[in-house]
Amino acid sequence: MASNSIIRLPINKVDGFEITSADDALAIEEPLEIRLEYGPNNNRQVKNISVTMRTPGNDDELATGFLFTEGIIKSMGDVMGIGHTFIACAENKENVIQVSLNENATPHLQNTDRNFYTTSSCGVCGKGSINAIRTVSTFNTTDDINRINSEVLYHLPDVLRQHQTVFEDTGGIHASALFTNAGELLLVREDVGRHNALDKLIGAAITENWLPLNNHVLMLSGRASFELVQKAAMAGINIIAAVGAPSSLAVQLANEFNITLIGFLRGKRFNIYTAAHRILLPTYEITC
Amino acid sequence: MASNSIIRLPINKVDGFEITSADDALAIEEPLEIRLEYGPNNNRQVKNISVTMRTPGNDDELATGFLFTEGIIKSMGDVMGIGHTFIACAENKENVIQVSLNENATPHLQNTDRNFYTTSSCGVCGKGSINAIRTVSTFNTTDDINRINSEVLYHLPDVLRQHQTVFEDTGGIHASALFTNAGELLLVREDVGRHNALDKLIGAAITENWLPLNNHVLMLSGRASFELVQKAAMAGINIIAAVGAPSSLAVQLANEFNITLIGFLRGKRFNIYTAAHRILLPTYEITC
Repeated sequence: MASNSIIRLPINKVDGFEITSADDALAIEEPLEIRLEYGPNNNRQVKNISVTMRTPGNDDELATGFLFTEGIIKSMGDVMGIGHTFIACAENKENVIQVSLNENATPHLQNTDRNFYTTSSCGVCGKGSINAIRTVSTFNTTDDINRINSEVLYHLPDVLRQHQTVFEDTGGIHASALFTNAGELLLVREDVGRHNALDKLIGAAITENWLPLNNHVLMLSGRASFELVQKAAMAGINIIAAVGAPSSLAVQLANEFNITLIGFLRGKRFNIYTAAHRILLPTYEITC
Repeated sequence: MASNSIIRLPINKVDGFEITSADDALAIEEPLEIRLEYGPNNNRQVKNISVTMRTPGNDDELATGFLFTEGIIKSMGDVMGIGHTFIACAENKENVIQVSLNENATPHLQNTDRNFYTTSSCGVCGKGSINAIRTVSTFNTTDDINRINSEVLYHLPDVLRQHQTVFEDTGGIHASALFTNAGELLLVREDVGRHNALDKLIGAAITENWLPLNNHVLMLSGRASFELVQKAAMAGINIIAAVGAPSSLAVQLANEFNITLIGFLRGKRFNIYTAAHRILLPTYEITC
């Protein structure tokens, strides 16, 4: 992934009284337009769905994950093909990707334009946003089988960090990782946009036919926002662990969906915001 | 600001083998719909411009700053009034804000729908995005008067941190701050969304009639993305200092606009990515 995700530029480094020339690695940020082709064979249509500022790499997963987590497609069974569409451009970048649906697939285009926030009966309020997501979710996040041991949790940030290849070079990128509940790393995806990193991850999991991800743990390199918990809920994820803080609406959504939400996972410490029953803590018998 | 920006919730804290109940402060995240009212008095229209997930507080500045940095309004002279519009909602949140323009003001609505990325001749590529911004910018960022001493720069992150009231309590929020080039703090704004924090800051500066901000330094608590540099350019800002890393497109945009972009400002170290001539380093004569 790293090859087309990083650019090296000459910069000046200042350290106290010294200034030196150096090469610095930067995470690439470029726009990606996601197009959807759909309809009967005798009347195909193409619609521009979204433009997102992303780090190039895994664009097919990003497009798949975005369309799924926004509720526009229901599964890979809807998808006939995905490919970059080259545009006339001096830089000739691969900045348009088109997802072609089978002729029988019906995209749920009422879910575009961030209608999650506006179609609900309650207009724009946190509760309305949460109710709107409930209506488009495919998977149940309320099952009570998934468990993770706190000792397993402590290792996840280190494992994630070791596999953040672009972060290692640039210090400027978000990551999402998928682990089994035994702590085995399955996938890592990186992007300048945290929502893109998660869309890539979920897109990869869809391609592998792994959904629902209900025996897994989603690890986030930064903070947990409403949008990230919403995307996780769409994939059936019921344990989320973040290195940073959650927002109020992220906690509210996790609570309503019975998703275990962990924040500030650092060293041997973490906060459990919701659904604490999925965390197994070591028990010690006093034997004096 | 902190009073309606923070919520306290009961959580479980795990520290090694111990689990304890505690109250935790979370940054509030709620949707805000920005509406624009415009047109002649006998034919007023209302258009929904955007829904953003934001931390409540300074909503009027957020709306003003957003409309300005997106190129939809040109100055406060366009604005007749700003106010929350209450909606029928069980939670009765102040989540809709309406900006009313004078009847002679013409909003540039072709700039909505993120057309920055799509109206340029080059479609979606970094260069196209940059060219599109050039066409809507009001202020010149290429003047060569503004200077800042490196010794002044070193203090800015500490001063910002001391004034981040919501971060202090929650650890989960972004900040933007405006300093003079002598290091005097003028404004700090915080939000769960880094673009919102900057829109609030620029909105406040517009209200004070301070634009263009060309004798100032913009300090960012995190990374510098394309979107943040774009918003800064719209306000005439020509020195940006970030605690975190910039993206490739942020550097490209800063370079094209002759904006000084500093990253990784920590302790007495920083990287200068563009327009290094605005940074004054101490010179020492060897007098042995």
